[in-house]
Amino acid sequence: MQLDHIGIAVTDLAAATERWAPVLGRPEGPPEEVPSQRVRVRFLGGRAAEVELLEPTSSDSPIARSIASRGEGVHHLAFRVPSVTAALADVERRGGRLVDRAGRPGARGRTVGFAHPSSFGGVLVEFVEAP
Amino acid sequence: MQLDHIGIAVTDLAAATERWAPVLGRPEGPPEEVPSQRVRVRFLGGRAAEVELLEPTSSDSPIARSIASRGEGVHHLAFRVPSVTAALADVERRGGRLVDRAGRPGARGRTVGFAHPSSFGGVLVEFVEAP
Repeated sequence: MQLDHIGIAVTDLAAATERWAPVLGRPEGPPEEVPSQRVRVRFLGGRAAEVELLEPTSSDSPIARSIASRGEGVHHLAFRVPSVTAALADVERRGGRLVDRAGRPGARGRTVGFAHPSSFGGVLVEFVEAP
Repeated sequence: MQLDHIGIAVTDLAAATERWAPVLGRPEGPPEEVPSQRVRVRFLGGRAAEVELLEPTSSDSPIARSIASRGEGVHHLAFRVPSVTAALADVERRGGRLVDRAGRPGARGRTVGFAHPSSFGGVLVEFVEAP
């Protein structure tokens, strides 16, 4: 599978964009809100794998809970797959746990789904359907 | 800068290789020891960015300390640069803190250097000199 992006949890999207711009360059588009996750995101980079900055838009956002317990930092790795639902089923068939049982809408209009961190030794893995 | 690899701290390199093989494929080469970091590493993937699994070879390894305090999981992001020393100096010029002041030998015979996590909002950033 091809790595699609690395998600980084941040408290202030504008400040984080400035922090990462010298390494990743400036983002092309505006920030995007993902209401279902109560999060505002921005993608930087894009030559090899991209970095996604995620700022919570509500205190009950999964990203807000992640920052509260572990601080800002790397939140997930995302891999590009032909079918998110099939990739999740494959994790379960190998004995792994899931967060999502089927693909659901994510950022940039793509279908996404998460495995549980215990399935990948403490790493939260997201599958993203290739556009 | 191009993302070079994502480092993941693990307690058991053989078990972690099996865990990641369905997603990243099997590694081509054997594990490599990096004595200066007291760590055994293995690179998987390689189409876009690679994943580096890092297992400590001593209890005073930086990776052992990371696992003891935060558990297994993502340890660092690595970016490919023309000059590690110049990239570190650039972080410092922007007011960031450093772990290394100059490039030093790392895995795969490459010159590497680390910025302090506070320079990138809780993310440990490694610079790797392009081969």
